[in-house]
Amino acid sequence: MNAQDGHTEKGFSVTGTAPAPSGGAVSDGDPGRGRDPECGHHHGYLADKDGYLKRLRRIEGQVRGLQRMVDDEQYCIDILTQVSATTRALQSVALTLLDEHLSTCVVRAARAGGDEAEIRLAEASDAIARLVRS
Amino acid sequence: MNAQDGHTEKGFSVTGTAPAPSGGAVSDGDPGRGRDPECGHHHGYLADKDGYLKRLRRIEGQVRGLQRMVDDEQYCIDILTQVSATTRALQSVALTLLDEHLSTCVVRAARAGGDEAEIRLAEASDAIARLVRS
Amino acid sequence: MNAQDGHTEKGFSVTGTAPAPSGGAVSDGDPGRGRDPECGHHHGYLADKDGYLKRLRRIEGQVRGLQRMVDDEQYCIDILTQVSATTRALQSVALTLLDEHLSTCVVRAARAGGDEAEIRLAEASDAIARLVRS
Amino acid sequence: MNAQDGHTEKGFSVTGTAPAPSGGAVSDGDPGRGRDPECGHHHGYLADKDGYLKRLRRIEGQVRGLQRMVDDEQYCIDILTQVSATTRALQSVALTLLDEHLSTCVVRAARAGGDEAEIRLAEASDAIARLVRS
Repeated sequence: MNAQDGHTEKGFSVTGTAPAPSGGAVSDGDPGRGRDPECGHHHGYLADKDGYLKRLRRIEGQVRGLQRMVDDEQYCIDILTQVSATTRALQSVALTLLDEHLSTCVVRAARAGGDEAEIRLAEASDAIARLVRS
Repeated sequence: MNAQDGHTEKGFSVTGTAPAPSGGAVSDGDPGRGRDPECGHHHGYLADKDGYLKRLRRIEGQVRGLQRMVDDEQYCIDILTQVSATTRALQSVALTLLDEHLSTCVVRAARAGGDEAEIRLAEASDAIARLVRS
Repeated sequence: MNAQDGHTEKGFSVTGTAPAPSGGAVSDGDPGRGRDPECGHHHGYLADKDGYLKRLRRIEGQVRGLQRMVDDEQYCIDILTQVSATTRALQSVALTLLDEHLSTCVVRAARAGGDEAEIRLAEASDAIARLVRS
Repeated sequence: MNAQDGHTEKGFSVTGTAPAPSGGAVSDGDPGRGRDPECGHHHGYLADKDGYLKRLRRIEGQVRGLQRMVDDEQYCIDILTQVSATTRALQSVALTLLDEHLSTCVVRAARAGGDEAEIRLAEASDAIARLVRS
């Protein structure tokens, strides 16, 4: 839960070069600090990290609201309406994330060319397919 | 959180203690206690209220996990994968709820006939349309 | 396309003029003529068969339009816009069909009770899940 | 209409270190012949135009099959199953188109930079949103 002590327990693919993504802080210039271990750059979404956290906390609130509705034995149709609203809120976060991912990581990879571009495009397409089918 | 003293402030709602959904009507025991003010009977989902609460708490955990991922500045594609998984979990709760709603409230309304049946069917169709489009 | 002289070239699923939907089939009144071999009654959608055919022919036209767009090498984004419109039109037909199915077959089965009700509800739930996930 | 000549330089495999597609305007060779009026190049999907046409003709066949099912008054649930299959086939065409659009037009625009890149990214994001929501 602590962004400070860095990405160590992440599991997936830390960078090859970064000595240590130490402080959660984003600082440009210093290569490897707070950078995307995947595409070697800042994530697009970091520009509005607070915005995402705010939206996700609101969605967490919606899910807790659903628990209260079930606990209060409210009418199923009313619960279903709230589930649909929560799903839409999640999809909307996903679409914003994807939009920023395309504008940053994918654009960067396209310019870099080669394998990097192919890998980023393939994983973006897979993510889009998962969103469309979920 | 008290389902006992039931739902008086809800607003729309038919009675809970309706005289008699005559035809093949389902009538069970103690009228009015823990009953659906909408369809005058126990909600289908009450049979497995704990199951729903467990699933919703797991989904709440997934949403908190998403916040950690953003806070840790993890890779967008990995976040998107988790958003899709969360969305699917929510849809799956919705489908189970809907299934039980059809087997209980809608079946009861179908047997009662008249306006009751039409109202329940119309609202179920609307809920399905919202799910399909969300 | 004459529904009267029934279904001969269909392939799957029984005839309309079947002398006897033998198995567990439900038959009431005049067995078999224009009746649902599944639930023993006219399908809900028959009331507006022409409406459905008109909508499906329009969708067929949209799909042919997509072929022309590809053949004319039009811009991918414009083609994608038309694919989304076609998908939505198909979903809308599905939602209307489902709505009428619930109001007719499922209501009838609910009144009949027993296995019949359970079977119809289970297959309606499955159809809803397929729609939500497609 | 001529898919013959060209496509040799497709993919994003190319350069990466390209000197500079300087002005936002992309123009190569013979402007206007079988070229994308939008992004000034062959569309990605042209490489497999026949594949798309084949898939779309199969989908057209599915839609005509739906008309026959309605005309034959088949069981609603069976029709719904076919509608879901048709919707999935359309979505699958859309995902392939989008994938190729990202690998060609969007990659090209990313390299060109400037307004061109922004416009292509914005319209790709909009198309993705329409797919996710349809």
